Amino acid sequence: MRKRAIDDTPAKPLMTGSPHEPLVTRPPQPKPSDGRRARGMRSRTAVLERSVQMASRDGLEGLTIGALAADLKVHKSSVHALFGSKRELQLATLASARAILVDQVIVPALSSDVGLPRLQAIGDAWCDYLAADVFAGGCFLCAASAEMDGRPGAVRDAVAAVMREWIAVLTANIEAAIAAGELRADVHPAALAFQLNALGMAANWQRQLLNDPSGIEHARRAWRAELDRLKPDER
Amino acid sequence: MRKRAIDDTPAKPLMTGSPHEPLVTRPPQPKPSDGRRARGMRSRTAVLERSVQMASRDGLEGLTIGALAADLKVHKSSVHALFGSKRELQLATLASARAILVDQVIVPALSSDVGLPRLQAIGDAWCDYLAADVFAGGCFLCAASAEMDGRPGAVRDAVAAVMREWIAVLTANIEAAIAAGELRADVHPAALAFQLNALGMAANWQRQLLNDPSGIEHARRAWRAELDRLKPDER
Repeated sequence: MRKRAIDDTPAKPLMTGSPHEPLVTRPPQPKPSDGRRARGMRSRTAVLERSVQMASRDGLEGLTIGALAADLKVHKSSVHALFGSKRELQLATLASARAILVDQVIVPALSSDVGLPRLQAIGDAWCDYLAADVFAGGCFLCAASAEMDGRPGAVRDAVAAVMREWIAVLTANIEAAIAAGELRADVHPAALAFQLNALGMAANWQRQLLNDPSGIEHARRAWRAELDRLKPDER
Repeated sequence: MRKRAIDDTPAKPLMTGSPHEPLVTRPPQPKPSDGRRARGMRSRTAVLERSVQMASRDGLEGLTIGALAADLKVHKSSVHALFGSKRELQLATLASARAILVDQVIVPALSSDVGLPRLQAIGDAWCDYLAADVFAGGCFLCAASAEMDGRPGAVRDAVAAVMREWIAVLTANIEAAIAAGELRADVHPAALAFQLNALGMAANWQRQLLNDPSGIEHARRAWRAELDRLKPDER
């Protein structure tokens, strides 16, 4: 499996040149200028590597500085020094999960051309990512969406921003495919993005709740079949 | 909007005569034989009416006897007397949510014939149910699925049983439609049930997290279009 990129540096857009919204906004992180800072950033990375796994299983609300310190067998004050508050820990964990999603699902598709080829590559990469059990508790963003949707605040807003960005990537590639004549002109970009997203979310649900991975292959085939079906008639 | 059936009596199958699994198994509830028992059952119904709403928003794990008593402005011991434990409260709340789902999504479809007509009716009823915001926090079972999938135990098993039953209803009607020649013989029942379920789950997600109800109409149209597309060619 690919190396997972764990970091919580300011968000890069998921697709260069595509419409996207700013993500988790946070002050720019200082570059480490001495050994102590470098060690601090390494610790932060190590803690986040653990916190994304914990949160994928127990939820972002279940993620507390105390629980994380206990899991890592370090003193609570060490974790507190790195994040300062539960909210900052949650936001940093979400940013790490987003970085993993970008690395696993978007980066592999960047070698395919914008439009239909990239849409197909994203679908395959998403299914590969779901099948690989990258997160202990299944797709982090799917779980965080369901958990946070009824809890107003900065964390919910940050989850929604990542998901809007994801839908915008799908929509932008659908629009590019229509413009290039790879998909029919009467395709409704938002409706198709909705349908494609639904397939992966349901595959994650079936894998996680029912311990049944067959949904991943249903999703892979349906993603491809839907795109094939919407190609212009050959004349 | 229809009156909501709130009860936690032993589960009825979602579709008469269809394959289904036993749901939340619990000892049969005694019929009230005197005034005190009748009042107890009315209290239980009133408490469950509140607990399904709380749990749809805050999750089944967030549902505690203390929180529910505080919300209802009654003493904790009154709620404890009705349920005995948090686990029993969670199971009874889930059974109530299932009864609401049956009442809102399955019952309206029972007047349509088994097979393709009933599948179409279930799709419409599900979208109506999502649009009506029956639960404060969106589709109870969608939220409970994501919340409980990483928490082994009786509650998780009960959530999975309800969802298996739901998928079995879709699958049984797809099989009936194929047998009646209403859908093509090469339709894969499990794959189509997966795709139809995915539409409603994603509509709920978009409505709840992004405050965007447009997914419900995308789901309604895609559900119908998918079934239309899979009808045998007219010859």
